[in-house]
Amino acid sequence: MIEIVDLTSLGKAVDPIMLSYIEKGADACFIPILKHQILAGGKRVRAALTILSCEAAGGEKSIAFKPAALIELIHNYSLIMDDIIDHGEIRRGKPTVRAKYSDVMAILAGMFYREVLDEIVDDCPNSTEMRKLMINAIKETIEGERLDILFEQAGRGEEYIKKHRYKNVSLNLYFKMISKKTAALIKSACLAGGLSASASNEKLEALGNFGWNIGLAFQVVDDILDIYGEKTGKERGKDIIEHKLGNIAVLFSLKELNEKEKIKLLNILRKPKVSRIDLNKALKLIEKTKAREKAYNLGQSFINEGKKAILNLQDSEAKSKLLSLADFILNRAY
Amino acid sequence: MIEIVDLTSLGKAVDPIMLSYIEKGADACFIPILKHQILAGGKRVRAALTILSCEAAGGEKSIAFKPAALIELIHNYSLIMDDIIDHGEIRRGKPTVRAKYSDVMAILAGMFYREVLDEIVDDCPNSTEMRKLMINAIKETIEGERLDILFEQAGRGEEYIKKHRYKNVSLNLYFKMISKKTAALIKSACLAGGLSASASNEKLEALGNFGWNIGLAFQVVDDILDIYGEKTGKERGKDIIEHKLGNIAVLFSLKELNEKEKIKLLNILRKPKVSRIDLNKALKLIEKTKAREKAYNLGQSFINEGKKAILNLQDSEAKSKLLSLADFILNRAY
Repeated sequence: MIEIVDLTSLGKAVDPIMLSYIEKGADACFIPILKHQILAGGKRVRAALTILSCEAAGGEKSIAFKPAALIELIHNYSLIMDDIIDHGEIRRGKPTVRAKYSDVMAILAGMFYREVLDEIVDDCPNSTEMRKLMINAIKETIEGERLDILFEQAGRGEEYIKKHRYKNVSLNLYFKMISKKTAALIKSACLAGGLSASASNEKLEALGNFGWNIGLAFQVVDDILDIYGEKTGKERGKDIIEHKLGNIAVLFSLKELNEKEKIKLLNILRKPKVSRIDLNKALKLIEKTKAREKAYNLGQSFINEGKKAILNLQDSEAKSKLLSLADFILNRAY
Repeated sequence: MIEIVDLTSLGKAVDPIMLSYIEKGADACFIPILKHQILAGGKRVRAALTILSCEAAGGEKSIAFKPAALIELIHNYSLIMDDIIDHGEIRRGKPTVRAKYSDVMAILAGMFYREVLDEIVDDCPNSTEMRKLMINAIKETIEGERLDILFEQAGRGEEYIKKHRYKNVSLNLYFKMISKKTAALIKSACLAGGLSASASNEKLEALGNFGWNIGLAFQVVDDILDIYGEKTGKERGKDIIEHKLGNIAVLFSLKELNEKEKIKLLNILRKPKVSRIDLNKALKLIEKTKAREKAYNLGQSFINEGKKAILNLQDSEAKSKLLSLADFILNRAY
């Protein structure tokens, strides 16, 4: 069994790598801004996935450190930008880069991160393939974020967004969105590990499928935690406050509620500003349904698919750690 | 003599290249947003510089097309982001990406451009060197933008910015800022041309110095046009409205005005909102001084330095076009 402490200590190995690349060529006054996102913490799940995937494919742990730093920095790049997009104030219990240093400094920090990524990738094994992986992952993440924004039901005044919002989101469309927003990078984390080990195409496919599925589960669990969670370090119901229809618990609830309740819930999501009273009403409506159970079961089925994908990999300590990491992702939900 | 039409038609050759790279892997709904910045026009001065520098170094024009598209797309990437940072509404007489499609879509478009850059660079001659050139140019541009923001005297409410603003900007600091914000990319445009032609170090240095100096002149002339210009497609005095101390005409004026007038001008720049009346007062104060003449002379000295740098390059049509392009940059000022 992998414990959260093991996981964190595994992933944390990439912190000094990220920090040393970030500092290169940056003005002394800019460095604290650049370091903030990394120093604010994080579980480094993606870095751990890269390192374990490398080992599970028969590679030396140490050759995956830079690729793991690469993947984790892509993630942190996207977080800096997401917080600007969503006006995020708090992340991991600390002020976001934009909250602490302003939106404009956060934009510049995000842009700087992207340059650093290109420098890290140059020092990775199989750097040409690794760069393609990176570009694809970032493009997918951008597209996922674009859809996530358009799934919002209110809260942005710009004409373009008001005109192009999705009034309804099917489960298929939801899966498309989370595939891109979340699963693509987690899949890439596992592939980066496999690439570091110069794994065969068969092994790469196994690791990719593993990452893809646990990535989908990861977002489903995140959605559950957003609606039902306590002590997550985030505000409960943040997705509802942000008018997001792209949350699996909301979508499952809408399928189950009667017409009147459904309209009630949608109307709350469509209010220009969701008050605390609105939020509680919405949460009560969602809690009336079996959405939590259904979402959990969905997450579990993704985890099972993911675990199945790597069954044929040779048994190793790393492989069993990957399997328990998959369980850990699901278990966050309770 | 190079005419503005020649220049434009030369640089315009890169438009289809930029557009075809941008469309790759983008969702159909995202493509109009991505294309807007390119379709909105622009003189493509940087692309022309890359192509001419390649030819002046003895290379075939056609091998510089992709590098020229690369440089022009870096420029347009920075414009998308700058417009978000400065809340720009109009550029080249058309709505900016953010004005037309929202800040958040503009952020995502900018991020997507950055991925496209990595794809173009892969297809450039000497791609490894070209990528280093690109990363360096973008990092410099980010740092220049950071300084430019901190040279503003008001207008942003965030604690960090209010605390870290420069109350005074020396000429040296101004040169540092414009070196990074503007000259670094124009230098890179010329170097990218040289690299495409696999030019000798000596030729690269000549082209780099040329680009560097005309880049400095370019920003000085932009500053002049901002304060004194008409029919630029931009609002006159935009820098003053945006509280910018980092404008050479403002800095030269402050050196010449008496203490009372100096404080008057600075106080306008430090007003939370600069009204039309304030703006006119500021422009009047500046017009009292010899700032325009001094700035023009400064621009001229950079142009002369730049032209001197490539004197030893073998005579060619491209070289004489580069020389007249340098004059053209200066002549925009009148």
